[in-house]
Amino acid sequence: MVEKMPSLDEIFSPRGIAVVGVSPSGSNPFATIVVKGLLAGKYPAIYPVNPKYTEVDGLKCYPSLEAIPGVVDHVIVAISAQAALTLLDECAAKGVRSVHFFTAGFRESGIAERAALEKAMLAKAKAGGFRIVGPNCVGLYVPKSRVIIDAIMPTEPGPIGFLSQSGGHAQDLVYLGAPRGLRFSKVISYGNALDIDECELLGYFANDPETGIIAAYLEGVKNGRRFLAALRRAASRKPVVIYKGGMTGAGSRTTQGHTASLATGAATFRAVCRQCGALLVEDLDELNDVLVAWCFATPHPRGKGIAVAGGGGGPSVSASDEFEKAGLSLPRLSVEQQAQLRQVLPNAGAIFTNPIDANNLAAPEAIDVTMRILGSFPQIDMLLYHLGFHPIGRWGEGRFSAPEFLQPVIESLRKVRQSSGKPVLVALRPAPDAEGFQEFLAAQQTFAAAGFPVFHSMRQAARAMSYLIDMREKQF
Amino acid sequence: MVEKMPSLDEIFSPRGIAVVGVSPSGSNPFATIVVKGLLAGKYPAIYPVNPKYTEVDGLKCYPSLEAIPGVVDHVIVAISAQAALTLLDECAAKGVRSVHFFTAGFRESGIAERAALEKAMLAKAKAGGFRIVGPNCVGLYVPKSRVIIDAIMPTEPGPIGFLSQSGGHAQDLVYLGAPRGLRFSKVISYGNALDIDECELLGYFANDPETGIIAAYLEGVKNGRRFLAALRRAASRKPVVIYKGGMTGAGSRTTQGHTASLATGAATFRAVCRQCGALLVEDLDELNDVLVAWCFATPHPRGKGIAVAGGGGGPSVSASDEFEKAGLSLPRLSVEQQAQLRQVLPNAGAIFTNPIDANNLAAPEAIDVTMRILGSFPQIDMLLYHLGFHPIGRWGEGRFSAPEFLQPVIESLRKVRQSSGKPVLVALRPAPDAEGFQEFLAAQQTFAAAGFPVFHSMRQAARAMSYLIDMREKQF
Repeated sequence: MVEKMPSLDEIFSPRGIAVVGVSPSGSNPFATIVVKGLLAGKYPAIYPVNPKYTEVDGLKCYPSLEAIPGVVDHVIVAISAQAALTLLDECAAKGVRSVHFFTAGFRESGIAERAALEKAMLAKAKAGGFRIVGPNCVGLYVPKSRVIIDAIMPTEPGPIGFLSQSGGHAQDLVYLGAPRGLRFSKVISYGNALDIDECELLGYFANDPETGIIAAYLEGVKNGRRFLAALRRAASRKPVVIYKGGMTGAGSRTTQGHTASLATGAATFRAVCRQCGALLVEDLDELNDVLVAWCFATPHPRGKGIAVAGGGGGPSVSASDEFEKAGLSLPRLSVEQQAQLRQVLPNAGAIFTNPIDANNLAAPEAIDVTMRILGSFPQIDMLLYHLGFHPIGRWGEGRFSAPEFLQPVIESLRKVRQSSGKPVLVALRPAPDAEGFQEFLAAQQTFAAAGFPVFHSMRQAARAMSYLIDMREKQF
Repeated sequence: MVEKMPSLDEIFSPRGIAVVGVSPSGSNPFATIVVKGLLAGKYPAIYPVNPKYTEVDGLKCYPSLEAIPGVVDHVIVAISAQAALTLLDECAAKGVRSVHFFTAGFRESGIAERAALEKAMLAKAKAGGFRIVGPNCVGLYVPKSRVIIDAIMPTEPGPIGFLSQSGGHAQDLVYLGAPRGLRFSKVISYGNALDIDECELLGYFANDPETGIIAAYLEGVKNGRRFLAALRRAASRKPVVIYKGGMTGAGSRTTQGHTASLATGAATFRAVCRQCGALLVEDLDELNDVLVAWCFATPHPRGKGIAVAGGGGGPSVSASDEFEKAGLSLPRLSVEQQAQLRQVLPNAGAIFTNPIDANNLAAPEAIDVTMRILGSFPQIDMLLYHLGFHPIGRWGEGRFSAPEFLQPVIESLRKVRQSSGKPVLVALRPAPDAEGFQEFLAAQQTFAAAGFPVFHSMRQAARAMSYLIDMREKQF
C-alpha cells in the first residue's frame, strides 16, 4: 500500500501525460484528437505510447510506459478493456498519479465479468497509489495546466468548474459555450465513477480558489446520503447548477446502459437540490445559458424589472410574453418616461411602453440615447438590447458596415452598464441566410469579447435571467 | 360603388405589381428588397414608381401609377402614411385589385388622427373596388405566382398556407423553415388587419386546394364570435396550427403598439383553440417544428412508441428523458430483440434497450441493419436516427467523406420508411466548430431534400412529434 494518494490538485496539474493507444492512421480518433489538443495547448510533456509505432504526429512514440524517460503523472488510455489490468500494473511501476480510461465496455455493458474487472482495476489503483478517472469518459480539460484535449477548445481558463458524467456533454458545454465567452477552471468527465466520483468533485470545486461557480451533469449518485452532504456543503459556498440525466423512467434505464448509473427518482432529486440550494436546470442548453447569465449579466440584477429595446414588432411581442412567462416583469413606462423617449425616437411604427420598438434603433446614436434613458429609470433593474440579422434590416438597414455599427453600440452599452450599475443583456436573433449567419456569429464573438451575455432568443434570455434571479433570491 | 370586389384568389395572382417608393440608393430598403425578390422570382411585370427617378435596379421607373402602360393588379406601398389617401385615389383610377401598405404609423401609433386616417383609407378602398393588405406588414409571398418578396426565399411552392399578423414572423418562418424543407402555398402578413383579416384568411385557406395545412401567427382577433366560427370551420377541414402573441399582460400591451391588436385573455384563447380543434403552440420555433413534422414525418405515426438510434451516451439519455417528458414512449426492447441487435453491433460501450447507442453506428452498413431491425419491431411506431458533428466522431470517425457517409444512410432510411410504413426522423446535433457547422448545414439540406424531418435537438423532435400526435388524436 502506498502511504498517500495524489490529491485532485495534483491530478489537475500533471507534469507529463502518456497517451496509450495512439496510431498515426487516425484509426483511434480519440487518441489522435487528444494529442493534437495537447499540442495546440503547448502542453510540454506529451508521450504517445504504442509498441507498433516509433513516431506519431511528429512526436516520438514509445513502446511502453516504462520506456518513457520523463515523469508521467497522467495516463490517457484508449485501448480495449481487456488490456486494462496489465496496463495498470505498468502504471503502478511508473509511479503515475492518475489513469483516465476513455475505453468503454466495463460495468455499463451489463456483463458480470466486466463489473468484476472494474473492481480489480480499483484494487490495483489503491495498491499502486494512483487514482482512476472514468472509465468510459473523456477525462480532463484544464486550461491553466495546458491540458487541452481538443484543439478547438479555448486555451485560456475561466471561473467555471464542470463535472460531467458524460464525455459528450463535457465537450458540448465547452464547445458551445466558447463563442459566448464561457471559460473553465477545470472540466472533468468521470463516466462510470469507479473511483473519482461526483461527491469528491463537488467537495474539490467547493474549495478550489480558481472555481467561482460549479456546474454538473449527473446521471446517478453512488450514495444518496453522501451526495446530500457534499451538495449541501458545496452549495453553501458557491453557486451549483445541475443538469440531471435520467429524470424519467426511460432516461433512467438509459443511464444504466451509459454510465452504469441507477438514477434517483426525479421528485427526490428535485427535493434534494431545493433543500441544498442547488439550481436544477432542464437540459444542457439551459446549463449553458445560466452560466452565461451568471458570468456576464453583471452586476447581477437587484430586481425583476427589465427594459427591452430593439427593432421589430414581432420580437417585441415575443419578448413581452417570454419575460412575463418566466416570472420577470416589463414595467410599463410612465407618460413622462415615454415622452423622454419620444423626443429622441421618431414615431412611425414605434412602441414606447416597454418594450421599445423603433425603426431608427437601427442607428447607433439612437441606441445610445435610448439605452441611457432606459438605464436611468428606477423601475428598471436590467436592460436587454436585441438585434436581428435579416437582410432587410441588417446594420442599420445597410447604412453601416458591421464594425461601424457594432463599435459605437458596444461602447454605449458599456457606458450604460457602468453608469447605471445594471446588467445589459444582448439578444441576437439568428440570421436566415448564409452571409447573415456569418455576421451573426461574428457579432456574437464581438459582444461576448466585450463581456456581454449573448442569447439567441427571447425565451432563452428570459429563462436564463429567471434562473439567475432564483439563484440570488434563494442564495443558491 | 364598384359591383364586385376582387377575390383573394385574384389578389394572390396579380398580373402586374407596382412598387411605390423605390429608390436606387437603397435608402428605402424594403422597396429595394421587394424589387430584387420579384426579379429573382422572374415575376414578369414589375413597375417601380418614384417621380424622382427614371430607372431603378435596371428597371424603368415610373413617376406615377397612371404613367404605367400595363395592367397593375397589386400595389406595394413604402411611402409615408401621410401620402396614403392621395395614393389610394391613384389606385382607384388605375383599377387595381389590392394595395399593400408596408408603411407603418397608423392606428397602432395610438394617435387619434391616424385611426381616422385608416377609416378613410378603408372607405376609399370600398369605393374604389380594391382591397387593402395591412397596413404595417410585409404583404404577400406567393411562389406559384412568382410573387417572391425577398431573393433568399424559395421560389417553389408547397402545402403550407400562413397568415401572420407580424411581417417579421412571416419572413422568419419562411427563412428558417426553408433549409428544413418547408414550402408554402401562400404567405400573407396582414399587420393592422384594416381590411383583409384573420377570419377571411382562415376561410380562404380552408377552401384553397393548394393549401394542405394552415399556420397562423395572431396578435388579436377583431371579433370573437366571428373568429370562433371561422376557426371552427377551417379546423374541421384542415389542420390549423396557431402561435399567438400577446398571451401575457405585457405581451398584450405590446400587441396594441405593434398591430393595434387587443389581445384576448390567454385562457379564453386556449379554450377557443381546444374547442375548435386547432393546435396552439408556444412560439415561432415550435410552429416551424410542428410544420416540419406534419410535412415530413410521413406516414404520420400510428402510435407513440419511438426507437432512437445513434452514437453517444449523453444524447441517448437526453432522448429518453425528452421523449418521455413529451408524452411519447421508448418501448424497452425484449431480450430477443436486443439479441438481434447484438448480433450486428459490437458490444463495447453499446446500449441495446432503446435508445440504441453503439460506436459503430458511425458506419453506414451498421445504421442500415440497425434501422431495418428496429423498423420491424411491432411496438415501434416511428424511428429517430441522430447524428453528431463533433470533430471526434464526424463521418464515421473520419473514415468516410460526407457524401460517402450520407448517401448510403439516406438510402437506408428511405428503404426503412418504405418497408415499415413508419416515419423516420433525423436529429442533427449542431457542431461546435466552424467547419463542422458548415457540414451540419449541408447535411440538413441533404436530409431535407430527401424528405426527412430534421430536428436540432431531442427536445425539439420530442415536442414536435408530441404535437403531431395530438393533432391526429384529436383530429385537429
